[in-house]
Amino acid sequence: MKQIEIFDSTLRDGAQGEGISFSVQDKLAIVKSLDRLGVKYIEAGNPGSNPKDLEFFEEAKKLKLKHSRLVAFGSTRRKGISPDEDKNLTALLGAGTDTVAVFGKCWKLHVTEIINTTSEENFAMIYDTCRFLRDSGKRVIFDAEHFFDGYKDDPEFALEALQNAVNGGAECLALCDTNGAGYPDEIYSAIQAVCKRFPDVKIGIHTHNDRGMAVANSIMAVKAGAVQVQGTYLGYGERCGNANLSTIIPDLTLTGEYSCIPQEQLVNVTLTAREIGEISNTSIKRGEPFIGISAFAHKAGMHADGVLKLPRSFEHVPPETFGNTRRFPMSEISGRGAVLERIRKIDSTIEKNSEETAQILEALKKMEQQGYQYEGADSSLEMLIRRSLGKYKPFFELKNYKIISGRPCENDNCSATATVKVRVNDKDQLMAAEGNGPISAMDKALRRALEVFYPSLRKMHLIDYKVRVMDPKSATAATVRVLITSSDGKSVWSTVGVSSDVVEASRIALAESIEYHLIQDNA
Amino acid sequence: MKQIEIFDSTLRDGAQGEGISFSVQDKLAIVKSLDRLGVKYIEAGNPGSNPKDLEFFEEAKKLKLKHSRLVAFGSTRRKGISPDEDKNLTALLGAGTDTVAVFGKCWKLHVTEIINTTSEENFAMIYDTCRFLRDSGKRVIFDAEHFFDGYKDDPEFALEALQNAVNGGAECLALCDTNGAGYPDEIYSAIQAVCKRFPDVKIGIHTHNDRGMAVANSIMAVKAGAVQVQGTYLGYGERCGNANLSTIIPDLTLTGEYSCIPQEQLVNVTLTAREIGEISNTSIKRGEPFIGISAFAHKAGMHADGVLKLPRSFEHVPPETFGNTRRFPMSEISGRGAVLERIRKIDSTIEKNSEETAQILEALKKMEQQGYQYEGADSSLEMLIRRSLGKYKPFFELKNYKIISGRPCENDNCSATATVKVRVNDKDQLMAAEGNGPISAMDKALRRALEVFYPSLRKMHLIDYKVRVMDPKSATAATVRVLITSSDGKSVWSTVGVSSDVVEASRIALAESIEYHLIQDNA
Repeated sequence: MKQIEIFDSTLRDGAQGEGISFSVQDKLAIVKSLDRLGVKYIEAGNPGSNPKDLEFFEEAKKLKLKHSRLVAFGSTRRKGISPDEDKNLTALLGAGTDTVAVFGKCWKLHVTEIINTTSEENFAMIYDTCRFLRDSGKRVIFDAEHFFDGYKDDPEFALEALQNAVNGGAECLALCDTNGAGYPDEIYSAIQAVCKRFPDVKIGIHTHNDRGMAVANSIMAVKAGAVQVQGTYLGYGERCGNANLSTIIPDLTLTGEYSCIPQEQLVNVTLTAREIGEISNTSIKRGEPFIGISAFAHKAGMHADGVLKLPRSFEHVPPETFGNTRRFPMSEISGRGAVLERIRKIDSTIEKNSEETAQILEALKKMEQQGYQYEGADSSLEMLIRRSLGKYKPFFELKNYKIISGRPCENDNCSATATVKVRVNDKDQLMAAEGNGPISAMDKALRRALEVFYPSLRKMHLIDYKVRVMDPKSATAATVRVLITSSDGKSVWSTVGVSSDVVEASRIALAESIEYHLIQDNA
Repeated sequence: MKQIEIFDSTLRDGAQGEGISFSVQDKLAIVKSLDRLGVKYIEAGNPGSNPKDLEFFEEAKKLKLKHSRLVAFGSTRRKGISPDEDKNLTALLGAGTDTVAVFGKCWKLHVTEIINTTSEENFAMIYDTCRFLRDSGKRVIFDAEHFFDGYKDDPEFALEALQNAVNGGAECLALCDTNGAGYPDEIYSAIQAVCKRFPDVKIGIHTHNDRGMAVANSIMAVKAGAVQVQGTYLGYGERCGNANLSTIIPDLTLTGEYSCIPQEQLVNVTLTAREIGEISNTSIKRGEPFIGISAFAHKAGMHADGVLKLPRSFEHVPPETFGNTRRFPMSEISGRGAVLERIRKIDSTIEKNSEETAQILEALKKMEQQGYQYEGADSSLEMLIRRSLGKYKPFFELKNYKIISGRPCENDNCSATATVKVRVNDKDQLMAAEGNGPISAMDKALRRALEVFYPSLRKMHLIDYKVRVMDPKSATAATVRVLITSSDGKSVWSTVGVSSDVVEASRIALAESIEYHLIQDNA
């Protein structure tokens, strides 16, 4: 099998995505996660443009990495000066990595219109920088910025830029589709041409997703001869983001022709995504290939039935291969087979014709008539099944709650005060809390009251909250469905609550979420 | 330019996505949006598996569509019976569309392992069904389920399935990558082979995104000869979703070789996405190609500088082409043209360079930073413009409101009591009301208080109420946007309110809605 190098730029190009911002501690945590997964390179910062990154590289020296090599990123020298006069290059060396990546201009338009210099000076900037870094003992990856636009516009110019990098000592040419405009066939043929022209240099691919083809373009580049793929782990990056490595690693593996991370780490592809998503404080799209919570969710009855007979009838790969799980979300278009599957996870002795199955289906139907919907709320479904089977003991009883709210208020962030009384093992606990609005106040009071009995709840936090108005025409008296997703940093679960009072619907979903956590914690 | 047919299945295959569920009203609204955009086909339901869909098709007959044709979807007849005995086919004809799409098995594995029949019967099911529908006067699109898996496994079997559809009278063969496992080069060569084998039939492509390549696979299929692209508008669908048409339409257009919607509608690609996202109550990924809010956001300084010098240095297409806007996340710049048009509806003397225009844009920017969005709330935008222009006098002042709520409560429909004090023409009016939940109680109290002064408010009622959580990760303290649609039986208007307190957000939208009514009533 051909080895493909994975070059992860989550911490550098990924940090250029809107809404992404990493602390030094975040970066160290992500490095550990990526190292465990076994990517070859981790591009971790740009010390020239971001002085904070030097602090990171200093800290990172203490890490003992098993699989990965850290890379610092920078630019070719500025025009008109020598490399040793360029502060950014000094900062780049200061990172102390054995490998560096530098980008240079390969599209003539940028040379004439953006940096305002001559082609000759641009080529010299590339050559001098690679040579300087090589002479300083570094291994050099040359990021050929806008290579594909440049190659389309003036192939000889673009290739000459690459030639200068090679002459300067670059060991890898990473061809960048910086603006994300490439189509798979164009990328394929350009990579082929470059591989032919530079048979002794490693060719890499670095794509952006502006036309929704970053992943496919990366795969086609590998098929054309590229041996390094640059991307970011969840596709973070400028504008529409970079090529998503959490998709590319499985995609390359599934061709059967390429290997890019250690075989035994494939099962950690999903875990790595969830860790990085958590650290970055972003939510992962439900349907994200391979790693999303819906990636192996079979909703249509015919699909669910097929999968129950033979998984590969509607699954392109077993979900466990990359650490994800199959799911059968409940809905009006899903069949009974799916429910049975869920019941049997809790009690494997139950059959399709068991009395319990009929009872649970009846309970489900009743809840659905009230407006409950369990797709997206697996954990509430599990609780419903547990209750029906008698495999459930309540961890607490909510005796009552009262909320006083209104405007104007003393302080804009505290428009509501809630009191909550819970009972645990015959002990009552009253707790009060303030919040912005009745839901937030009630949420805080309930958690604080329960933390007295269950300190592990401190680890749990909500990561998603959704409100859906179900019969919009009833307007402010309409039934609402609240979906809550919670996490304890390791697993993620979702619960649902329904009421015509949004506070009560939230309370139901929240209480279920807490109970689910306590069941897991005491399992 | 070669014409490519867009076949939108948001309402059918899209509804199979986890978390997606459409009411009949939702479906009608999406049909209108897609018809304005100018897609050729709208596959709108599966009357056989979902009886509610027949109600939709009945309602849809009243729509006057400009560009699009509705399609009903179904399956080939069941084994061992004739088409006219098959209830699903009867339901399919009941939809009353002139075009129908039916799927049939093209992967031998499914014939032997899932539906348990012989190859001969499978081929007969395909032939009989197409023939029956054709003889019933329908135009028939044959969805070749699992075509690519089937073709890889046993090409002659897969092609024989297609031959039967053609013999039965299908005018289009839509080749499906049902499990989403295809790579662009494989899709390309399979499509080429099928086009060669069936030169007189239209070939379509229908892909899924399980390997993150649904868009690229669709584009490569067109390059290989396919003339119809099936997908869903925001990529909704089973598991990882279908090919995203909001990406594919621009991608095809940008090749310069294909045309797929009317040229003048390209500018509505983004609007259509936002409307459909809103109706579906799903949030659009920030970095979604072409239409996401970050799709043209330039964060890195070097990129922003480049774009300011020359947009195409870091933009693959001008954002306005598809109705999106460029953003610089640090210093937001919003589009002036659209706003000016709205201003001039209220005061036609105002010009692009008027001081008022600048002031309104400034006010708008401030509101947007708070989370306001005026796309679905025209009346709130009008009120904002009126306030800036001084063409507004408040009809009432809300002095305060207080709400007491909690559970358990005496009566399940009255969990909250609200008091409201309003001032009109120096007269204070205090009013109290009970409701189920704080929002409903506050709504009632506010209306009753104002009806004392403005009896015409009795004619006004809310017809739609939507809650949208904007930063779901802040969970119960998240900012929410409430959209309210009101009517007085003659006209319909929409307003918006934003707050991290759902009661307050509702109060703002409600107060705006009342004020708007009073302005119209006194105009």
